Amino acid sequence: MSTPAFTDVELQEVLAFTVALARKAGELILEGSAVICATGAVDEKKNAVDFVTEYDRRVEELVVAEIKARYPSFKFIGEETSSVRAPVTDEPTFCVDPIDGTTNFVHGFPHVCISLGLVLGKRPVLGVLYNPFLDELYTGLRGHGAFLARPATRPALAPARLPLSAPRPLPNLQGALIGVEWGSDRSAALMEKKAASFVRLGGDPAGGVVGGKMAHSLRSLGSAALNYGMVAQGGLDVYWPWDVCAGAVIAQEAGCLVAGKRGAPLDNNVDEEILWGRKYIVIRAIGDSPTEKGVDAQKRLVKEFYHTVEDFDPPAPKA
Amino acid sequence: MSTPAFTDVELQEVLAFTVALARKAGELILEGSAVICATGAVDEKKNAVDFVTEYDRRVEELVVAEIKARYPSFKFIGEETSSVRAPVTDEPTFCVDPIDGTTNFVHGFPHVCISLGLVLGKRPVLGVLYNPFLDELYTGLRGHGAFLARPATRPALAPARLPLSAPRPLPNLQGALIGVEWGSDRSAALMEKKAASFVRLGGDPAGGVVGGKMAHSLRSLGSAALNYGMVAQGGLDVYWPWDVCAGAVIAQEAGCLVAGKRGAPLDNNVDEEILWGRKYIVIRAIGDSPTEKGVDAQKRLVKEFYHTVEDFDPPAPKA
Repeated sequence: MSTPAFTDVELQEVLAFTVALARKAGELILEGSAVICATGAVDEKKNAVDFVTEYDRRVEELVVAEIKARYPSFKFIGEETSSVRAPVTDEPTFCVDPIDGTTNFVHGFPHVCISLGLVLGKRPVLGVLYNPFLDELYTGLRGHGAFLARPATRPALAPARLPLSAPRPLPNLQGALIGVEWGSDRSAALMEKKAASFVRLGGDPAGGVVGGKMAHSLRSLGSAALNYGMVAQGGLDVYWPWDVCAGAVIAQEAGCLVAGKRGAPLDNNVDEEILWGRKYIVIRAIGDSPTEKGVDAQKRLVKEFYHTVEDFDPPAPKA
Repeated sequence: MSTPAFTDVELQEVLAFTVALARKAGELILEGSAVICATGAVDEKKNAVDFVTEYDRRVEELVVAEIKARYPSFKFIGEETSSVRAPVTDEPTFCVDPIDGTTNFVHGFPHVCISLGLVLGKRPVLGVLYNPFLDELYTGLRGHGAFLARPATRPALAPARLPLSAPRPLPNLQGALIGVEWGSDRSAALMEKKAASFVRLGGDPAGGVVGGKMAHSLRSLGSAALNYGMVAQGGLDVYWPWDVCAGAVIAQEAGCLVAGKRGAPLDNNVDEEILWGRKYIVIRAIGDSPTEKGVDAQKRLVKEFYHTVEDFDPPAPKA
């Protein structure tokens, strides 16, 4: 495949444009959440869905219009207005998720972001996640690292290269803080598999949980993209997500392993497959220990994780 | 019981002092988390526990020293250096939880706070929660409302009276975003009860989950105190916590119902019991609907919640 030639300077320009666009979109997301919370639209399921659809569409229209004005030749993969599973060409293509964490959005639970990723030659090379509720901005550019910028009143904290601390060892899942989500499919079969998986991840084998890993704990923030960011910064050790183009770039640039679903090669290759709605796992940068290189620990822990959880293939976590 | 007389001006002074103290303690919490994350102490369970104990103690010592200097007659209930279950007298008493969310603290997962509550005449009257990672400050003063102050670069957002939006109706748990936590007791018996409860809260009755409420979703942030704050601001609808003195004041001043455990009177009375390690439920301010007053909806939903979940009495969520 031929990758269109972009100089580093050009890509930095695209990044600056994308960051400004994400912040602008963030204002619209905040406005939408305020409208929904003020009107109580969330309480009527149909109304809530309509509101989400409307703001998803409005944010995506804003994003698409600005990209078209600046980069008229670029393509899009959008969640709302485009065919998500259309084949990606070698052309520069923006992956747009206008509102990641829509349930949080309608509730005003402040873990919501816009996710903007750029694919070149079928490979994600640039990612921007912006959470307007917390004014937190994750950026990643292939080969140039990942960063988190936070509000200016916390100057000691922002902007910081990810991970925020030097990668630590992670001997086993017992020492892990794991991101899990309940998703939108709530059928008995799926809920029971999820619950059983979560009980095994967190359960105490000495307390009778067969196969229990006694992980430090489990967290659920409700945004797949921001969970990628949290693993990238090192606040979560493992997350078991769906594909998120921008999140994958940020995570990989922060030293994470972004591996495929159970049985897939552990090669950190999310080039083409990530655009195709596949299940992934992301594990944070791990420092070398005296007996094991960090990259080997990442692969070993992914295997341990898949050995622990039950196999299921939930739909992409839109709700 | 006789409540020592404090004027409003005096209590506002105590609040200003407590806020400044919480921010100072927050600096120490950030320092501690950075040390732990940098040294990898979290990966060795014993080391992590030692670090938490050390910083819990250091933060509490800072807090106690400053309170003693300013208010020498005040008593303390501390998590680390005091006897937590000692009887509370009618004297002014500070409830101090130096680090709420200790697992998050050792991982750098940015949902950690110091919790400072003041009890007068055995009644919580003042609460301050400060999360130094996000620079978010919740305050509540009996009779004067609850507020959330956020970083100054988000001027439109801070400081805001809670709840952040006018209280909306909440017809049933199906419309709810519910805070749940896995806690520190991971025995099979407890984990299975928790998992079954979570499956019923989130499960789809049409998809085969008997008694399923199909709640919008479940979230786990890992800090009981901050979950109170999140319900107070309206980002979560329900949380099922342990006692948190400061959190209860903030929640009640934001119009929440803070009710006792299953079967206890639904009277929003957390005066004395809250200091005794009892299980509570907190539900957000609910607006009146054409057919039901908000306060009646709160009580009805608490009953629906307790009807849905299994009965268990986990230990207080320290880990």
